[in-house]
Amino acid sequence: MPHQTLRYAMIGGGQGSWIGEAHRKALALDGTARLVAGCFSSSRERSLAFGLELGLTNESRIYGSAAELAEAEAALGDLKPHFVVICTPNRCHLEQISLLAAKGFPVVCDKPLCETLAEGKQALEALGSGLLALTHCYAGYAMIKEARSLVTKGRLGTLRKVVVEYPQGWLVPEEGKPSMSASSGVSSMVDVGTHAEHLARYVTGLEAKEVFADVSSFVAGAPRTPDDFNVLVRYEGGQRGVLIASQSSSGEQNCLRLRVYGSEGSLDWMQEEPNVLTMRLRDQPVQTLHRGQPYLCEEARSCSRLPPGHPEGYLEAFANIYRSFAAAVLARERGTDLKVDFPTAADGIASLAFVEAVSKSAETGTWVHV
Amino acid sequence: MPHQTLRYAMIGGGQGSWIGEAHRKALALDGTARLVAGCFSSSRERSLAFGLELGLTNESRIYGSAAELAEAEAALGDLKPHFVVICTPNRCHLEQISLLAAKGFPVVCDKPLCETLAEGKQALEALGSGLLALTHCYAGYAMIKEARSLVTKGRLGTLRKVVVEYPQGWLVPEEGKPSMSASSGVSSMVDVGTHAEHLARYVTGLEAKEVFADVSSFVAGAPRTPDDFNVLVRYEGGQRGVLIASQSSSGEQNCLRLRVYGSEGSLDWMQEEPNVLTMRLRDQPVQTLHRGQPYLCEEARSCSRLPPGHPEGYLEAFANIYRSFAAAVLARERGTDLKVDFPTAADGIASLAFVEAVSKSAETGTWVHV
Amino acid sequence: MPHQTLRYAMIGGGQGSWIGEAHRKALALDGTARLVAGCFSSSRERSLAFGLELGLTNESRIYGSAAELAEAEAALGDLKPHFVVICTPNRCHLEQISLLAAKGFPVVCDKPLCETLAEGKQALEALGSGLLALTHCYAGYAMIKEARSLVTKGRLGTLRKVVVEYPQGWLVPEEGKPSMSASSGVSSMVDVGTHAEHLARYVTGLEAKEVFADVSSFVAGAPRTPDDFNVLVRYEGGQRGVLIASQSSSGEQNCLRLRVYGSEGSLDWMQEEPNVLTMRLRDQPVQTLHRGQPYLCEEARSCSRLPPGHPEGYLEAFANIYRSFAAAVLARERGTDLKVDFPTAADGIASLAFVEAVSKSAETGTWVHV
Amino acid sequence: MPHQTLRYAMIGGGQGSWIGEAHRKALALDGTARLVAGCFSSSRERSLAFGLELGLTNESRIYGSAAELAEAEAALGDLKPHFVVICTPNRCHLEQISLLAAKGFPVVCDKPLCETLAEGKQALEALGSGLLALTHCYAGYAMIKEARSLVTKGRLGTLRKVVVEYPQGWLVPEEGKPSMSASSGVSSMVDVGTHAEHLARYVTGLEAKEVFADVSSFVAGAPRTPDDFNVLVRYEGGQRGVLIASQSSSGEQNCLRLRVYGSEGSLDWMQEEPNVLTMRLRDQPVQTLHRGQPYLCEEARSCSRLPPGHPEGYLEAFANIYRSFAAAVLARERGTDLKVDFPTAADGIASLAFVEAVSKSAETGTWVHV
Repeated sequence: MPHQTLRYAMIGGGQGSWIGEAHRKALALDGTARLVAGCFSSSRERSLAFGLELGLTNESRIYGSAAELAEAEAALGDLKPHFVVICTPNRCHLEQISLLAAKGFPVVCDKPLCETLAEGKQALEALGSGLLALTHCYAGYAMIKEARSLVTKGRLGTLRKVVVEYPQGWLVPEEGKPSMSASSGVSSMVDVGTHAEHLARYVTGLEAKEVFADVSSFVAGAPRTPDDFNVLVRYEGGQRGVLIASQSSSGEQNCLRLRVYGSEGSLDWMQEEPNVLTMRLRDQPVQTLHRGQPYLCEEARSCSRLPPGHPEGYLEAFANIYRSFAAAVLARERGTDLKVDFPTAADGIASLAFVEAVSKSAETGTWVHV
Repeated sequence: MPHQTLRYAMIGGGQGSWIGEAHRKALALDGTARLVAGCFSSSRERSLAFGLELGLTNESRIYGSAAELAEAEAALGDLKPHFVVICTPNRCHLEQISLLAAKGFPVVCDKPLCETLAEGKQALEALGSGLLALTHCYAGYAMIKEARSLVTKGRLGTLRKVVVEYPQGWLVPEEGKPSMSASSGVSSMVDVGTHAEHLARYVTGLEAKEVFADVSSFVAGAPRTPDDFNVLVRYEGGQRGVLIASQSSSGEQNCLRLRVYGSEGSLDWMQEEPNVLTMRLRDQPVQTLHRGQPYLCEEARSCSRLPPGHPEGYLEAFANIYRSFAAAVLARERGTDLKVDFPTAADGIASLAFVEAVSKSAETGTWVHV
Repeated sequence: MPHQTLRYAMIGGGQGSWIGEAHRKALALDGTARLVAGCFSSSRERSLAFGLELGLTNESRIYGSAAELAEAEAALGDLKPHFVVICTPNRCHLEQISLLAAKGFPVVCDKPLCETLAEGKQALEALGSGLLALTHCYAGYAMIKEARSLVTKGRLGTLRKVVVEYPQGWLVPEEGKPSMSASSGVSSMVDVGTHAEHLARYVTGLEAKEVFADVSSFVAGAPRTPDDFNVLVRYEGGQRGVLIASQSSSGEQNCLRLRVYGSEGSLDWMQEEPNVLTMRLRDQPVQTLHRGQPYLCEEARSCSRLPPGHPEGYLEAFANIYRSFAAAVLARERGTDLKVDFPTAADGIASLAFVEAVSKSAETGTWVHV
Repeated sequence: MPHQTLRYAMIGGGQGSWIGEAHRKALALDGTARLVAGCFSSSRERSLAFGLELGLTNESRIYGSAAELAEAEAALGDLKPHFVVICTPNRCHLEQISLLAAKGFPVVCDKPLCETLAEGKQALEALGSGLLALTHCYAGYAMIKEARSLVTKGRLGTLRKVVVEYPQGWLVPEEGKPSMSASSGVSSMVDVGTHAEHLARYVTGLEAKEVFADVSSFVAGAPRTPDDFNVLVRYEGGQRGVLIASQSSSGEQNCLRLRVYGSEGSLDWMQEEPNVLTMRLRDQPVQTLHRGQPYLCEEARSCSRLPPGHPEGYLEAFANIYRSFAAAVLARERGTDLKVDFPTAADGIASLAFVEAVSKSAETGTWVHV
């Protein structure tokens, strides 16, 4: 069967949006889908200019609002996009998901699902049985698939503890200037913390029961948005967790790291060196597993493109999310349902519930149920 | 100016060729060019099947021979490909370069340029003033650009020594089975050694004057192809070098590493961790430079796609070669000439001269002029 | 002035005590002091046997109780030990410190100072103006001196956050067997947590204001002693901290790590690779500083024995504590007072106060003042 | 049986000699032997002053010449040293070994054995059946014992290749000043190359058959002493080797590294991180073995002092050589002969033969038999 390139439209992700560019490159890398329409700015003019720059040739498919796009593209019949990607500010997600779902479009939404848990629940309702992928891209790394598989197989014994950290420094502004995140009013718990929360949950399968959080705003600026979160977690099964999410960690780059401890050993993965996974089993040499090797689980091997020692990176991880999502879209079109492996709206809800519990704990100084 | 996606055709790179896939993905990643024609196998049937699988829809542009492709595509006028990519066995390169050059096609050729220096010189002649890029993809890494810039700026002082190693193990077969390389009769000096030779030359600008080589065949099989090369190098300026190229290094993956020593310090880069470059200056803390950071040189920054800490890999390096080449192709079409930064046929000639000197040295047990 | 080797006596540290052996080796390494007397076991017989094994020749100076030792050694005039080392279980420290202080002996006490804060305060009172060193040996590493100096010089800008972790796994027993620590009833907060707490305080100079803790016992056994502590810290100056102390982290060895974040950058040090210190300053290459190099501060250089690249380890760090203490002992004998750089009884009190606040927080589920 | 501390005398190792201090500390660390006599300088006055500084109290045992020391100490009967340590310039070794051997003293000699192979052979003859240890201290690391054991057990399959490098930079002077080594006229092949040669031989058991060398003097100064050696090696069994020994590698510290390749995998050890050994077996996760762990071979475990994760360093490796030697000395005194594990005069001869073959190859530009 020939490889089938799908069609997609994009909302947001215009001039200066590096994450929009990341979505497009991740889709192009594997030829998973090609861009056929978009609304890249709330200014019709800028949207048009950017769409042309991206190589769209049919000007009538470049829109000035998400509503127009949803309306017009849904009417195209066989030519309509297979799915629509949302790369807009978080506050727009609910409305756009609702618009697209109403027209029956499968949706890919950049994380977080919405701004608040309440909104998230509305989005879930609007979505109904529709497909939605949330781009928690770090879950797309091959070695994260392997980590998950090792945990599932019980290689670590009984799980005890999860330490997940996401200290970031590359957005920290010079003293006295607002940070990119701070200026946009998005707390670091939402911006990077949800990635950390999702990654821990994806690999371990553990559900957070309650959290205790200490929250700070270190970077000066107005409004002061919380940029440093230190969170203690208690999981349903009695396991413990520590989650650190910070965007005021000067000197760091993008240092997401996950450690999982069990009675028999531990796993350690760092996003900045994503092609390796370290497993430390009691009384054994430390094992470093490498992407592309034959000893990996089927899932890790199948989302790898290059031979061992030829580094894959962030875009491949991102592309893996899209590959899974595209397979689900095609299966849905064929009337079957695929057991999906991509972050869903339910994952988004779980993350938002976690975020709200964190905020409430910081306010009350108490353990808060998630 | 809107982004212009070029058109390309491919010769070779069919079913089972991972390097053909790497070329296609590297081109797709940035939307540098889209595939419009190809000859993917010397079997017309298999070529057709594979072309369709790749999404080519015009069957008439899927060929059973390179000659046909060159002839027919050249006749297409404005729709003809902007360039043609060669991913065939080395022994076919000369003929195919000649065919394409005769029709005026810019060519991208997987390394090495040809099987022998003599062939390489013929190819150079056939090429005339035509454009050719050789995909020494490792030269495309951003941190290699930085390394080159640091050497050029004199940060290491007077150069003294180059140590470049390329021990590979992932193709080593189980004892008693021929290796993939061995079975194809390509020596490891050609297969991986030319990458090492090119990388050292690219970063340092040093020209090898003479070499002394020790060559072995460790992996059993018939024919026994040399799979281990240890080479001493003397450069024109009196610098010294050590080059190790091996495909019998069991346990290694793809461990290309370059170290450059000067009077004031040294540089160290490893392909398996390509986002960092280590600089050790005398009496100073060791510096680790990271891709994406503002302190890098313009060239390193400009061939970077993602923020710091979001790993790029092999495909991005590969894509950087294509970006430069595409810019040169467009400039040529506009009648200007761009100062190019991609490996050329001249680089291919230099590598083949090096390879021949290595072989001769191994035979004679003497220093041999390059 | 000739090097003066002091005399010391030891209480505890007998057969099977690796920490007693570490004390002795650390003292021998630099010839700081030689063992002249001891009480190595509460069994007189075993004490004698072990003392002879250690090379003590005068049987009358090998004792069966700390009280005897203190009494008899104090009576020896010019031959009496310059100081006495305590390597006994924590519950014995108070009594032994009191005995020795009463006789005017300077004391070296293995950490923690005592079992409880109340005891610690009694010990401090008993000590009066006497000298006491607490062997928080990790503070003795040269690169920790450098870290402290860099913080003091303001290289990190305004301090924001401290992350100190001490996950240990080498004492984790097989499932179902009590751990060495658990069986001795010492919580991991006391055993490894005090090291972490001290290290963070030593390097940053920050005083903990309040703590919030989550405490678990993962390793089965009776009595179940807490073996996993996750602690949030608020410092006097508004800085935040995370402290992890665990002895149920299967797969880990002795992975004490300290990170300090400030507005301008961060420091990172790992005990298992103690000869290096990593400094990450915003928008600059990451710097790795190495022991023995000329660019280090005077204090780091002065407690280094070997040229760069010749690794020093745990015993050298331990020996550095002893060197400072010995200098203070000699200064005291000469009637002067040296500005000391070794952990003191006051440090021990601060640690015990921290430990108590942690316990209280875990019980109450609230922030607790230290 | 009580621990027996031996007595030793030292020749050389006076004021400013860091290696003399390393010998003394290595002996003190384990209480292996205590200094009882010495000749620390060819100036009687300086020898006396330094001996007193070291804590020697009997002035009559501090000498102004090696001959005096040998004569007088041999006459002391039961009080005479169990062995004598030589830390003098290489040119003095032959005479001093001869003097000491004539008096029946076991000898520890800092490497190399002598200045030339001819001298080495004379020393061997003078030594007769006497004991001599050569302090190739790097062979004393626990993980090197493990490496040797793994090779011996056949874990790497059939050996193919050895890559041993010793690039050093910490002695490189500023441009225009002679290096410490250069000024003393000792080539880097002797100074660091013999360590590399010995280490490779110790771990693999391979005997070099012939060598080809390229030699340079990069650091300016008079006399210009070779400071950069790149050597190809052919072993008796057909294996290949690359040896790099350099003291003009600016930016490096003391970066001795050994890699051994076999048909089934490879070993990798770096002196600057001596507590770990990396084993890469084909198609398996990379294994990192750690000092102090139960899975190590008996020999590696027995020369380890501290629990896992408590780093040991250079002095412990040095001390391990001394431990083995002391055991051999004691065995000899008891009239038995111990199977020794320390570098001997025969090892010194092998190294000097290698050095001479390297020099001859560099002069003749041909392969030279060792």
